[in-house]
Amino acid sequence: RPSTSPARSAYIKPTIALAGVAQNLSYWDSIHSDIDSHLKKALPIREPVSVFEPMHHLTFAPPKTTASALCVAACELIGGNREDAIVAASAIHLMHAAIYTHGHLMLTDSDQKIPHRFGPNIELLTGDGMFPFGFELLAASMDPDGDNSDKILRVIIEITRAVGSQGMVAGQDSDVEFDQLSGQTRRCLHGCGAACGAILGGGSHDEIERLRRYGVYAGKIQGLLSEIGRKERGKVKLVEKWRALALKELEYFDSKRIEQISKILISVISCYYDV
Amino acid sequence: RPSTSPARSAYIKPTIALAGVAQNLSYWDSIHSDIDSHLKKALPIREPVSVFEPMHHLTFAPPKTTASALCVAACELIGGNREDAIVAASAIHLMHAAIYTHGHLMLTDSDQKIPHRFGPNIELLTGDGMFPFGFELLAASMDPDGDNSDKILRVIIEITRAVGSQGMVAGQDSDVEFDQLSGQTRRCLHGCGAACGAILGGGSHDEIERLRRYGVYAGKIQGLLSEIGRKERGKVKLVEKWRALALKELEYFDSKRIEQISKILISVISCYYDV
Repeated sequence: RPSTSPARSAYIKPTIALAGVAQNLSYWDSIHSDIDSHLKKALPIREPVSVFEPMHHLTFAPPKTTASALCVAACELIGGNREDAIVAASAIHLMHAAIYTHGHLMLTDSDQKIPHRFGPNIELLTGDGMFPFGFELLAASMDPDGDNSDKILRVIIEITRAVGSQGMVAGQDSDVEFDQLSGQTRRCLHGCGAACGAILGGGSHDEIERLRRYGVYAGKIQGLLSEIGRKERGKVKLVEKWRALALKELEYFDSKRIEQISKILISVISCYYDV
Repeated sequence: RPSTSPARSAYIKPTIALAGVAQNLSYWDSIHSDIDSHLKKALPIREPVSVFEPMHHLTFAPPKTTASALCVAACELIGGNREDAIVAASAIHLMHAAIYTHGHLMLTDSDQKIPHRFGPNIELLTGDGMFPFGFELLAASMDPDGDNSDKILRVIIEITRAVGSQGMVAGQDSDVEFDQLSGQTRRCLHGCGAACGAILGGGSHDEIERLRRYGVYAGKIQGLLSEIGRKERGKVKLVEKWRALALKELEYFDSKRIEQISKILISVISCYYDV
């Protein structure tokens, strides 16, 4: 769809990129600020501090994930309330933080941006606690009257699949090697985040699957851009192609409502291409 | 209750101990054989083999856990069918296997009975996949008509708590130190297993809590006996005390039905004291 899509290399123009970041900051920030508030209430530093201090630190230290933001944005795009998506977005953040913690477990401080504050045993066990804690938050968020039980259950299944065996084998484009697995899981988690938001917002099957695909493209783009050599010509073209496919999924929705969620994608890209 | 409790050191007599093991083998074995069958169906070795072969190996290589056996035994004690408890028992086994895998991650082959077959990265990521896979099995076992949804949900909450933050802080007897955490989780998982079986069997609140306490004592005994120096006089006394308290919880139930679940406890003890 070359006639309607933006100029080929729009996203590498610094002006557009920076505008994207600046305009989007408030939406992205407001989502993550709400997730943080929710998680801080759910996870106060309490006794025994030897358990909760690492859990607290390892939950909030990793970079924010677009997967959580997509969950809230998809819910709001469908017309749902942000509160309906915040627990799922928080659970997705916990999965991301656990994966991040374990992914950095065996790295030395010189290999990573965030230095280790705890020993590997503590990081290992704390990560292990964060996966189930995310599911616990979700399960506990069910309405006693069962009004939202079906949706929460679907969300639990979505997340278990994304971070469980299915996430590991989501090698649709390439053979899966173990060292690529955290990238695979990230891609799955982005699709899962958007799908969960759509489910919680009350989306139809079609809407859920479109937003899932949008999220998968966002995850793929982020995965590719986080690799070394992201400015290679072939990769730039691939990012462009995926971006167009992602935005195409949004054409189905009310054009007035897609602004925020599409900015999340622009922000993902501009993060890597801005000057 | 010295008048009705068995002879003080009955459980260290080799004859009784061995009898306990022999008689109990069939019940214990039949439970674990059913769990194995269920997990082998749910987790076939398929493509990509690089993912599923480690997952398969690390699921079945660890020793069986009493927590899973207690889940099935508690369900059957309450009058439920074994099939109602097998998915939960399998999920509990997956949690146990993931904890076991991560607990042995940093040990060398000379420190442990089961040698490593895979590198630490694979063991780390595979364990990370096993936690959510257990929840996925549970969530997927819900009846579409919703007949068992409430029970499965309660079970999901039970397990998330046992292996999540709550399991980590279950330091009712002692200050929690991080190196004791896998023991804490084990204790929680045993109580959780018995409680989940009781929930799935349709037990009352009182029955669920009694069986939970029975399971917690079983986990405490197993934790203590797995430590070095388990034949110290003080520890033997403690095992004896907990065993009496555990069996006291069973007095509430039909005496004809408690035989199998009480043999599981005897078997835990005789494992360590047999000759």
